[in-house]
Amino acid sequence: MKKCAILMGSENDWPVVKKCADTLKALEVPVEAHVYSAHRTPDLVKAFVSSAEDNGFGVIVAAAGKAAHLAGAVAAQTTLPVIGLPITATQLDGLDALLSTVQMPAGIPVATVAIGGAENAGLLAAQILAVGDEALAGRVKAQRQAMRDAAAKKDEEFQKTL
Amino acid sequence: MKKCAILMGSENDWPVVKKCADTLKALEVPVEAHVYSAHRTPDLVKAFVSSAEDNGFGVIVAAAGKAAHLAGAVAAQTTLPVIGLPITATQLDGLDALLSTVQMPAGIPVATVAIGGAENAGLLAAQILAVGDEALAGRVKAQRQAMRDAAAKKDEEFQKTL
Amino acid sequence: MKKCAILMGSENDWPVVKKCADTLKALEVPVEAHVYSAHRTPDLVKAFVSSAEDNGFGVIVAAAGKAAHLAGAVAAQTTLPVIGLPITATQLDGLDALLSTVQMPAGIPVATVAIGGAENAGLLAAQILAVGDEALAGRVKAQRQAMRDAAAKKDEEFQKTL
Amino acid sequence: MKKCAILMGSENDWPVVKKCADTLKALEVPVEAHVYSAHRTPDLVKAFVSSAEDNGFGVIVAAAGKAAHLAGAVAAQTTLPVIGLPITATQLDGLDALLSTVQMPAGIPVATVAIGGAENAGLLAAQILAVGDEALAGRVKAQRQAMRDAAAKKDEEFQKTL
Amino acid sequence: MKKCAILMGSENDWPVVKKCADTLKALEVPVEAHVYSAHRTPDLVKAFVSSAEDNGFGVIVAAAGKAAHLAGAVAAQTTLPVIGLPITATQLDGLDALLSTVQMPAGIPVATVAIGGAENAGLLAAQILAVGDEALAGRVKAQRQAMRDAAAKKDEEFQKTL
Amino acid sequence: MKKCAILMGSENDWPVVKKCADTLKALEVPVEAHVYSAHRTPDLVKAFVSSAEDNGFGVIVAAAGKAAHLAGAVAAQTTLPVIGLPITATQLDGLDALLSTVQMPAGIPVATVAIGGAENAGLLAAQILAVGDEALAGRVKAQRQAMRDAAAKKDEEFQKTL
Amino acid sequence: MKKCAILMGSENDWPVVKKCADTLKALEVPVEAHVYSAHRTPDLVKAFVSSAEDNGFGVIVAAAGKAAHLAGAVAAQTTLPVIGLPITATQLDGLDALLSTVQMPAGIPVATVAIGGAENAGLLAAQILAVGDEALAGRVKAQRQAMRDAAAKKDEEFQKTL
Amino acid sequence: MKKCAILMGSENDWPVVKKCADTLKALEVPVEAHVYSAHRTPDLVKAFVSSAEDNGFGVIVAAAGKAAHLAGAVAAQTTLPVIGLPITATQLDGLDALLSTVQMPAGIPVATVAIGGAENAGLLAAQILAVGDEALAGRVKAQRQAMRDAAAKKDEEFQKTL
Repeated sequence: MKKCAILMGSENDWPVVKKCADTLKALEVPVEAHVYSAHRTPDLVKAFVSSAEDNGFGVIVAAAGKAAHLAGAVAAQTTLPVIGLPITATQLDGLDALLSTVQMPAGIPVATVAIGGAENAGLLAAQILAVGDEALAGRVKAQRQAMRDAAAKKDEEFQKTL
Repeated sequence: MKKCAILMGSENDWPVVKKCADTLKALEVPVEAHVYSAHRTPDLVKAFVSSAEDNGFGVIVAAAGKAAHLAGAVAAQTTLPVIGLPITATQLDGLDALLSTVQMPAGIPVATVAIGGAENAGLLAAQILAVGDEALAGRVKAQRQAMRDAAAKKDEEFQKTL
Repeated sequence: MKKCAILMGSENDWPVVKKCADTLKALEVPVEAHVYSAHRTPDLVKAFVSSAEDNGFGVIVAAAGKAAHLAGAVAAQTTLPVIGLPITATQLDGLDALLSTVQMPAGIPVATVAIGGAENAGLLAAQILAVGDEALAGRVKAQRQAMRDAAAKKDEEFQKTL
Repeated sequence: MKKCAILMGSENDWPVVKKCADTLKALEVPVEAHVYSAHRTPDLVKAFVSSAEDNGFGVIVAAAGKAAHLAGAVAAQTTLPVIGLPITATQLDGLDALLSTVQMPAGIPVATVAIGGAENAGLLAAQILAVGDEALAGRVKAQRQAMRDAAAKKDEEFQKTL
Repeated sequence: MKKCAILMGSENDWPVVKKCADTLKALEVPVEAHVYSAHRTPDLVKAFVSSAEDNGFGVIVAAAGKAAHLAGAVAAQTTLPVIGLPITATQLDGLDALLSTVQMPAGIPVATVAIGGAENAGLLAAQILAVGDEALAGRVKAQRQAMRDAAAKKDEEFQKTL
Repeated sequence: MKKCAILMGSENDWPVVKKCADTLKALEVPVEAHVYSAHRTPDLVKAFVSSAEDNGFGVIVAAAGKAAHLAGAVAAQTTLPVIGLPITATQLDGLDALLSTVQMPAGIPVATVAIGGAENAGLLAAQILAVGDEALAGRVKAQRQAMRDAAAKKDEEFQKTL
Repeated sequence: MKKCAILMGSENDWPVVKKCADTLKALEVPVEAHVYSAHRTPDLVKAFVSSAEDNGFGVIVAAAGKAAHLAGAVAAQTTLPVIGLPITATQLDGLDALLSTVQMPAGIPVATVAIGGAENAGLLAAQILAVGDEALAGRVKAQRQAMRDAAAKKDEEFQKTL
Repeated sequence: MKKCAILMGSENDWPVVKKCADTLKALEVPVEAHVYSAHRTPDLVKAFVSSAEDNGFGVIVAAAGKAAHLAGAVAAQTTLPVIGLPITATQLDGLDALLSTVQMPAGIPVATVAIGGAENAGLLAAQILAVGDEALAGRVKAQRQAMRDAAAKKDEEFQKTL
């Protein structure tokens, strides 16, 4: 089964990014997480990413804040799908990270999720791996159904509080 | 082989979105394109998307401008990976479409590409399908290598013009 | 007498949205509130909205944050007037919710109020219902006069503090 | 039958605002349009608006650009529903007009539509009047159905072009 | 000697606006402050402003947040210089108030100061009155010199802390 | 009679700024205009401004684009009222010039008008000089009345076109 | 004498970037320009930059648009000063490029100039090299003086046109 | 050895700016820091900057918030490289300071770093001085290597926590 790699620019991002790992683990997707920076340790990024496919990874999540170059730097070194997770790390509320992640030039796509959207980064990674993995596809569908049912129940509970 | 669906909110988006279809065809990915609107024809969106997986689609690209709800509306009806392509359709330069597409709530991810980034939407769709399709993965890698070589040649040509 | 429905994307929005319900109740407008999500429970949204007119509703308030698609999704299923209430739910201060709510494409209008403007959503709903209800129109006018008088008194009180 | 008033801050806004009047006329809603400015002719605004209800108006559309105070100035003088239509009149792309129109303080709501969304301003006005007018409600529904069918046909035509 | 009027949209603005009054009093400019709202008490605004010149006022400061129409509404009723003071009252950090105040249409100027810049609103009012009042001009110059000297001293003190 | 100085950062700003001069001349206010740059000719700015009051000026308009420091640099050298006129000179639509002009620190106010609002800069300068000049005050009031009447006539003409 | 390298992400940037090269040549600074992309040819970027100091370069200008990672990618591979030149390449007016270039994380600075500020990128590069090169410092000062004199002359010429 | 001057608009900026001084001192670069304001003490700015080169300074860092004119005012008085450090001092999160600092007109460059990026301002100043100072260049390289090694170690430590 293919693995998902989670790279983050700073260990400070982990409290947010952890939800991505947790979401994947709940769907039984093998996860490997690393603190690699596009600017401080570009050699580690390159070494990890250029061998990621050979090492069994099928998708990579890259989380970074500020001038968030990590997802783009990762995408430049692989043709695996790369998910960009913009992190709020400055006074600009993550708008800098969002634009730095999503506005990629033609040729090198990054699949960007919401600012701080770690859970969705994990779900998207699972959906991507599920395209070629029927068992995982089943678990993703079950998770969606469970979420839908929980959301539906929230209205029932809300009605009781009125 | 799994197909890619391309949905767009208005036929006016086609001049931009066509590059997405062309990119996929060049990679020999079967494509089906439709003009479906989250607001004007929500029934058509639902009917198409809820049966997309059964009809052989592995990924869906949704392109829309303004309050671009299409990608989110599609993602709410399927667990296939959904790629959101924000289109510039107002005076706000597509910023409205970008935020409407990327800032999805937890549970329903949309893989967002750059404003007007139709080529990247196609490449990303191909990369996603390639996770479970080695032949396509090979074509994606060859395209990347060709693009890299063409880019490298651009500097050589540029040097001659100096 | 026609009722006002208040739909919100998440039960977390209730502390803000409650002011909308309170405002309507003070004007003796019957209110029904639900936690329905455009993305997590689109079936519940559709079921409720498509039968809303038959069930005695004359106007619908839809409150949501982030990529706030709820008001647009509601408006796509009814020709009743739909009021969009953008909620601050992300680091972008509700600007994402505002643009996702107000920038609707031609054909499907959403009557958008200020970010977090729950009281005004309620007043606007009452004003709309009052177009065909003289008694309610009278109560709306009395509320406006009372507010004006209270505001005028604020200056009198302020003068004493100087 | 109740009428809709359309006020605009400058006669330069008419090419955009005309679509609002045309939409209303197609739905057989009586329309009266005026060039009144919140800043240059506040007396005319006040005179018109404070007698609007008595003169048979049920809803008012106010269109303005820049620091677009017109809709708020109108709303301050009536308890009829007021629709704000922000116009692009500066280099800021209408963002100034949008924020000046939608961010109203508690107590005085303005039902804001998209920047330049004149057609939707007209449709919303008709939807509001239709709450108390079954014949108009029928025409609004027929218009919606016709629009839906035209949109559905657009995909059929698009398929032929592929 | 001409007086300065300070109008504010809400008594909640006073903690910020008070600095404007204090600055003027320190320069011995007579001040009158009122809580008047462009939307909730437009009649009070009009009554006060249209007679302001006759009542001895030479300049008016108008402070408001959100869709801050107060300064524009004041300027529409007088040819006295009107100073607009945008207040942070929403999640949009006062950007809405700034644009609503400064982007006035041709013909009705508002002299806008920084978001929350109450002290500068007071200084500007004094500078304006000082154009025709030599004694006040002298006090304004003395205040400027004192401020300059205090600022210069700050560096001397800072050097001791290093 | 006191004069108004108009300084602009670049001769390219003149087509916009000329309206400021024309407005003042129509009100019979003596005007002197100069191309002085806060960055390229700071010595000329300082020499002109520090002697402006002695040379008979009562108010200064400073127009600049980009990082528009001119108005602030002028205000730092005088206690005369300084009007800042932000000019659109970059791709950022003048938002950079607006923020650079209006967000002045406490102690040094700049009376900022709309982006490109040259006519209002002239009117504001005249209003300021009119505080101490009854004849000018009369001309400003007559101009306002004429503008009001012309605006009122626009609606009459508009009605004929319907 | 140390050289300046100019890297740009796309040959489309050359019409803007050429002014940087021209400015440097006018100051007799040796220039080498290349089309290298952080995303399409990261290997060429790394090869060039990591040997730049040894090859006689003292400063590097990196110009890019959209999610402009080039300057950051260059800065990560050298301790030479790196100047970032954001280019307008999307509908977002270069704001995306500005934020992607300037908001660098601690440890890897990029000296960012204005959007499209190619001439200033060249001047800044010359100023940096001039810190250790007295002859160049002299030429930079002469250029500044000439610019100041030309700017001063512009006012003289402008006075004749009035 | 050439010194670095650090100027800041207000002593309130020191808690942020101190990191710039600390970074330089750790690299053994002589530092002098002053509280000088472009608006409150322009004479002190001019006196210091115009003699800075003669006094042994090779680079100047200028930190300011709001309408941050300080870096531009400094750059207008010297041809030494000037580094602009935008400070968050208003509700606009430093976006006003960033645009006021970076969007300089042609002829007067400012090397702008991230909002609040004091450490990078210091590193950039050191990199600039190192162009003509091999010993400093060595220390800058050692600092970079140490930072890289520390960053690499962070991943090792992170792996132990999983």
